[in-house]
Amino acid sequence: MSPKITGELLRQLRQAMKNCKYFSEPIQAYIIPSGDAHQSEYIAPCDCRREFISGFDGSAGTAIVTEQHAAMWTDGRYFLQAHQQMDNNWTLMKMGLKETPSQEDWLISVLPENSKVGVDPWIIAADQWKNMFKALSSAGHSLVAVQDNLIDAVWPDRPERPSTQLRSLGLDFTGISWQDKITTLRAKMSERKITWFVATALDEIAWLFNLRGADIEYNPVFFAYTIVGMNTIRFFVDLKRLSDPAAREHLQLDSPSKPELSIQTFPYESVYTELQAICAALGPKDKVWICDKASCALTQVIPKTHRSPIPYTPLCLGKAVKNATEIQGMKMAHIKDAVALCELFAWLEKEIPNGNVTEISAADKAEELRSQQKDFVGLSFPTISSVGPHGAIIHYRPLPETNRTLTVNEVYLIDSGAQYVDGTTDVTRTMHFGTPSAFEKECFTYVLKGHIAVSAAIFPNGTKGHLLDSFARAALWESGLDYLHGTGHGVGCFLNVHEGPCGISYKTFADEPLEAGMIVSDEPGYYEDGSFGIRLENVVLVVPAKPKYNYRNRGSLTFEPLTLVPIQVKMMNTELLTQKERDWVNEYHRKCREVVGAELERQGRQEALEWLIRETQLII
Amino acid sequence: MSPKITGELLRQLRQAMKNCKYFSEPIQAYIIPSGDAHQSEYIAPCDCRREFISGFDGSAGTAIVTEQHAAMWTDGRYFLQAHQQMDNNWTLMKMGLKETPSQEDWLISVLPENSKVGVDPWIIAADQWKNMFKALSSAGHSLVAVQDNLIDAVWPDRPERPSTQLRSLGLDFTGISWQDKITTLRAKMSERKITWFVATALDEIAWLFNLRGADIEYNPVFFAYTIVGMNTIRFFVDLKRLSDPAAREHLQLDSPSKPELSIQTFPYESVYTELQAICAALGPKDKVWICDKASCALTQVIPKTHRSPIPYTPLCLGKAVKNATEIQGMKMAHIKDAVALCELFAWLEKEIPNGNVTEISAADKAEELRSQQKDFVGLSFPTISSVGPHGAIIHYRPLPETNRTLTVNEVYLIDSGAQYVDGTTDVTRTMHFGTPSAFEKECFTYVLKGHIAVSAAIFPNGTKGHLLDSFARAALWESGLDYLHGTGHGVGCFLNVHEGPCGISYKTFADEPLEAGMIVSDEPGYYEDGSFGIRLENVVLVVPAKPKYNYRNRGSLTFEPLTLVPIQVKMMNTELLTQKERDWVNEYHRKCREVVGAELERQGRQEALEWLIRETQLII
Repeated sequence: MSPKITGELLRQLRQAMKNCKYFSEPIQAYIIPSGDAHQSEYIAPCDCRREFISGFDGSAGTAIVTEQHAAMWTDGRYFLQAHQQMDNNWTLMKMGLKETPSQEDWLISVLPENSKVGVDPWIIAADQWKNMFKALSSAGHSLVAVQDNLIDAVWPDRPERPSTQLRSLGLDFTGISWQDKITTLRAKMSERKITWFVATALDEIAWLFNLRGADIEYNPVFFAYTIVGMNTIRFFVDLKRLSDPAAREHLQLDSPSKPELSIQTFPYESVYTELQAICAALGPKDKVWICDKASCALTQVIPKTHRSPIPYTPLCLGKAVKNATEIQGMKMAHIKDAVALCELFAWLEKEIPNGNVTEISAADKAEELRSQQKDFVGLSFPTISSVGPHGAIIHYRPLPETNRTLTVNEVYLIDSGAQYVDGTTDVTRTMHFGTPSAFEKECFTYVLKGHIAVSAAIFPNGTKGHLLDSFARAALWESGLDYLHGTGHGVGCFLNVHEGPCGISYKTFADEPLEAGMIVSDEPGYYEDGSFGIRLENVVLVVPAKPKYNYRNRGSLTFEPLTLVPIQVKMMNTELLTQKERDWVNEYHRKCREVVGAELERQGRQEALEWLIRETQLII
Repeated sequence: MSPKITGELLRQLRQAMKNCKYFSEPIQAYIIPSGDAHQSEYIAPCDCRREFISGFDGSAGTAIVTEQHAAMWTDGRYFLQAHQQMDNNWTLMKMGLKETPSQEDWLISVLPENSKVGVDPWIIAADQWKNMFKALSSAGHSLVAVQDNLIDAVWPDRPERPSTQLRSLGLDFTGISWQDKITTLRAKMSERKITWFVATALDEIAWLFNLRGADIEYNPVFFAYTIVGMNTIRFFVDLKRLSDPAAREHLQLDSPSKPELSIQTFPYESVYTELQAICAALGPKDKVWICDKASCALTQVIPKTHRSPIPYTPLCLGKAVKNATEIQGMKMAHIKDAVALCELFAWLEKEIPNGNVTEISAADKAEELRSQQKDFVGLSFPTISSVGPHGAIIHYRPLPETNRTLTVNEVYLIDSGAQYVDGTTDVTRTMHFGTPSAFEKECFTYVLKGHIAVSAAIFPNGTKGHLLDSFARAALWESGLDYLHGTGHGVGCFLNVHEGPCGISYKTFADEPLEAGMIVSDEPGYYEDGSFGIRLENVVLVVPAKPKYNYRNRGSLTFEPLTLVPIQVKMMNTELLTQKERDWVNEYHRKCREVVGAELERQGRQEALEWLIRETQLII
């Protein structure tokens, strides 16, 4: 991976920062958040502005360019990658380390007095704008909304915004019609005396309408906005997409069942003016719900007295708790996914000794095997296929210039997942195809202990996921080890592989309590820089637990693994496991053998079945 | 415990709420926070306004009275107690339960449109004012600062504000002179470009000046304010107290060593006008530090552009990390405290079968035995001495009308502590003097497992205490049990038994990371309403740990118990303990025997020594 040469680009950007075409007075700093006008985590090529200006293409990062400096904030997953992708013009700001200043503090320390800091108000979320605005103001600077994006101004061949075909999902996949979802939403609105709701998150809009798209790689979403009132539904989308008869039929555009379920369609770009018109006609008591993470631009259209910002919208909460149909779909998707992975691992075991398998070819093989499964749509994120030292680059993605050959001498980590029409998967396994070192086994075993501690945890109803994070770390901590990322994230159902409002992380306190039906990942790790990486990830479903007692009738919850792929016993130092932990491994492997074995048999994949049976033998 | 009859009082208060003597327009609700003008947790009798109006005397609670309603918010420790102390005029709002509305939500739900809600701005903290102000404004109501306290208006025989003698502490107790503390504070101020610092918390002022008082029972503090500039120190206190030559000498009032260490003294009440004068003379860049938990009244004196609110002051942080002298003092205090408790338990064992020991006489005996120890000053909080069902009232305090006799048939819980000149103690033991039931033993053992999980935890430097809270609950959760309070609080050194900024609780996320030298309690529990209560509390010191590895050179921490009182083996179901947990118990008991045994021997307390030796036998 060689860094992007950014000297000339930065020169042009700094020129634009002084160019009065864009604003009345020059700005002294320009903030380039990652994300798009919907605050998406994964973004379309036309929105990859932070990558374009810096070269760093990880999923999280914020660049700030001043007249003298260019700095990039990112988290522990990306320290190595960002370091490798950016040239000397850039300073890496390692978030989460004590010595790293916040963006605000850094700006205040480097800016001349009374500086102006610019940002595109469509890209920055309202809550981030607010914090940045406050911090800069208190230090005598000002934050300025720059309507023309300055990166676009120096990006001559910027790609077009995609507009892919919409896919309608029936009740057999969604469990609830979009009409019923609208009705539930309106009930919540009237309960809270809310008259309008503005949806800006792409996955929420896709979930609401039971529609999927392919505008953003890996995320089956499409560019749109929606504004729901008590009697109207306004849908903002590239209108060309609605010429498709199936989509028209699904949305009942030509023959709505009831007037209040009639959808009015508008061009994507007209959301701003339409929201302005709605706000101009608000009654004195009217309240508008908008997520506090929505864009600053759209949020500020709503007059403050009418604005009711919420950390999580009812759609986000509704989407997080999967219904029975979605759970069944997720289970099916994970069985298919396990079939593909068992085949992959059986194949790797055979092929690696020949020296012909690379990180890229292994990832390609995984995709090929997944694509043979029913209702496969695509991958759910770029496959992390990493050998030896690459495993320590937490979100490594193999490129031709970094591509390493799998051998019997190094640890192999593969973190991959797929979109199936019935569900989304995300699984990480760490394997050794020769003989792992004692240290590798020791670290693997601590990570496994952490994985089990979360997976087997029983906790009261109402517990927030962040309270479980330390369980995943206790065994590592006891040996002085740790990992610099959260333990789990929400997972969508044929939607984004990362979704809120639940998760398991020491970093989040605003998460919503875990509820039966929520689905999260459980993925502790350990990374030895320059040597190897270990991560063990299952997607798990929150289910009721029935412990001996029931304190104050609160009820208890636990997790049921949806991922059913064997965990390599060769990597375990079983002496470090307690009897309870060994029992957990044996029970997990029994279930893998039973459920995935039956499917392998049905699909006639004999070699993978033999591999599965061998890899799920009892440990003692 | 019979409830206070409050009908007439509430009638008078509601009349005052309509009385234009106090404001231009009547108010529809009046908030009565607990606490005083320093936001103290424990308060002097003259400040017990919430207790006066409601009867509920727990350490935490907020009352709100409207024209129709009177409601009291308190947390799980006090649900039973508040229920028993308040009459039918009051509604108990159980904080922490899902169905309980916040104060703001409740007000909004019960108030008529455009209501005015009053509060004494000296008693409400600035951050609470801000939240309440926002919430009420957004619902069309307003929050009004009522300068005359309306409770005082209906409280004819309200006690005087105390003004006890000041006690000066030398370097042998404090380790650092007040002059050096001022110098360190000023260095932090100039590092952050702060020109003034306003100290309002009584324990911070006591710590800063190495002075103690006795204005508030259990807390060795005195009513005062301090404003520190780069060259001046202004000390606001009842000036009569400074006629004492020892105090004058200690503060160098008559012969300051350097001009910038010269203390100007002012009457306690003049802090408001003096701060106004300071603020009137501020330069355009001058910044004033004040804790965001300081009173709204004093905070709002500082113009917003000059105000720099901080969650924890440098004094709070400095006080939390104990120096070597303070640690040595805390260790000595805990050894003396353990001597007293070993004697108490040996005595109880002998006396209980005679049927003459009650909750009150046991508490008195504990105090008597503590008072025999060197440098004893008083108790550090009201002793919780509770038998059987009273143990489930988390902060129960025996009263003549509730006083229960200790028997060999019920669990006994005693949570007690003392102030010694060298340190503060806080210890809880749960004992059975006959044969505990299997269920009592089971619960005790889960609590013990939680206590050990925290005490023995190894965690990276920089970890916040709230990340350890779940360790204390895991064993209880696994059986469907839990407790509705935090796991630990900071402990002062001959100061308040509860202090910030560290602690171990699921409820706090703004806590500061744990550091070597900090001292917290570790006190999980289990409470079976109407039957028994279990809590096991040690005060523990944060110390460096040396695990096998040292990830990213961060270093690790763990806890060293300062409390050295045996944990009753009779209450344990040792089969539920792992070998590691049994080892911890044995090592803890070995240390109790060694350290406290030597002191018991030195003091010639033979019976207690025999009891200690018997109670610290190995478990297997």
